[in-house]
Amino acid sequence: MKGASRLKIIVAYDGRPFAGWQSQASGNTVQDLLEAAFARVAGASVRVHGAGRTDAGVHALAQCAHVDVPARSLTPETWTAALNASLPSAIRIVRCAYVSSAFHARFSAKGKVYRYRIWNDRYLSPFEEGRAWHVPKPLDAAVLEREADEFIGTHDFASFAANRGKPEQSTVRTIHSARVRKTGTLLTLEFAGDGFLYKMVRLMVGALADAANGRAASGDLRRRLERPSVPAHAARAAAPASGLYLVRVLY
Amino acid sequence: MKGASRLKIIVAYDGRPFAGWQSQASGNTVQDLLEAAFARVAGASVRVHGAGRTDAGVHALAQCAHVDVPARSLTPETWTAALNASLPSAIRIVRCAYVSSAFHARFSAKGKVYRYRIWNDRYLSPFEEGRAWHVPKPLDAAVLEREADEFIGTHDFASFAANRGKPEQSTVRTIHSARVRKTGTLLTLEFAGDGFLYKMVRLMVGALADAANGRAASGDLRRRLERPSVPAHAARAAAPASGLYLVRVLY
Repeated sequence: MKGASRLKIIVAYDGRPFAGWQSQASGNTVQDLLEAAFARVAGASVRVHGAGRTDAGVHALAQCAHVDVPARSLTPETWTAALNASLPSAIRIVRCAYVSSAFHARFSAKGKVYRYRIWNDRYLSPFEEGRAWHVPKPLDAAVLEREADEFIGTHDFASFAANRGKPEQSTVRTIHSARVRKTGTLLTLEFAGDGFLYKMVRLMVGALADAANGRAASGDLRRRLERPSVPAHAARAAAPASGLYLVRVLY
Repeated sequence: MKGASRLKIIVAYDGRPFAGWQSQASGNTVQDLLEAAFARVAGASVRVHGAGRTDAGVHALAQCAHVDVPARSLTPETWTAALNASLPSAIRIVRCAYVSSAFHARFSAKGKVYRYRIWNDRYLSPFEEGRAWHVPKPLDAAVLEREADEFIGTHDFASFAANRGKPEQSTVRTIHSARVRKTGTLLTLEFAGDGFLYKMVRLMVGALADAANGRAASGDLRRRLERPSVPAHAARAAAPASGLYLVRVLY
């Protein structure tokens, strides 16, 4: 776009009301709603390029995207205020900034941080509906912690990926850190890595929960990492979308 | 009720979907929904006696109520499970227990603890909608803390009460503690006291916010405590229901 400026936006959203990030014919995705807000504010149709997709029901504290806007007529603060005035309250622009045209939300990303929340009590708190995975059976936090450590490092994560139609070029990824925190009945797992395959975090958390409630034997998780192959019914073992949060994109 | 047993229930609810605690002809109150759940489980109509009312939109982490159930046929665990299966997910029975018929949820209460959450940032987090008061203008936490201390002790709180039709027998209450905590952009205020007048916490928080954003002069709050009179337009100065949580009832 001639005379265009590239705007980097940081977006938070509650994933519940939306059909995921990526634009769909049926609409009601975060990308569709952002593009509609940009169209209203900029008076021109623009494309929003996200750092990556999130599935329906998955939340974001700081998703990143870039947009080429027609002119540098508005300040970042004005963009933020005007877009927020046009967006549903479940989507908020946290901040935005003009960046070099060399910046690409997806291709410039060096990694991501994801958080997964588990409500581990007999009854789900009314305040956690759609915001955590409800696991009534007690999970052993020490086992969660020990098994989560197995993910750290560079592995072929094919056994922790769901098929999205086209095969991945490589299923090797590096996990920098895996943290487990217990606060009362809430278990929070946080993973930082150079990239995540489709449904990877949810499959990792599903495997961790199986280990921590005794359904899977000790060593099962490590064996899945050592003998990588995309499971036929991966979706079954994936923890639900409701507990997953994209915390930030690393550049 | 002959052969009846008194059941004490602890209830958590997200106040957003409901028209407050107290039963109304229009229904959709927490009390109405609890009574409907008891009717389904017990097969008989019972009355739920709450420790106190909460207004529409006000939340509870542990409201307390008592109910005289027809017979001691179910264990407390079975009551909890059966009631939760009959209730909307925004209302959860946390636990229940059989108690002496001398116990009365309202008259036996020795005090209450309330929490108030303020999201103090330009834009409201998508995860805080209906769960905090959005105050975009910066609030000075040190002023909040200093002014909150003024409430501690025994005072005539008439200037911090809204009229609910019939006059209160006494507007003197004792506040045991007032705590202010700042975690990032979230301010949490917590008050424990022997009782609270109608809209008292919301009027206290409204006054604190006025002091902390410079709208009210230093000493205004103390003067309102020293010259008690029910304000004509109290509702205007009250912080919204969305930020208020009944944390627990003290017995």
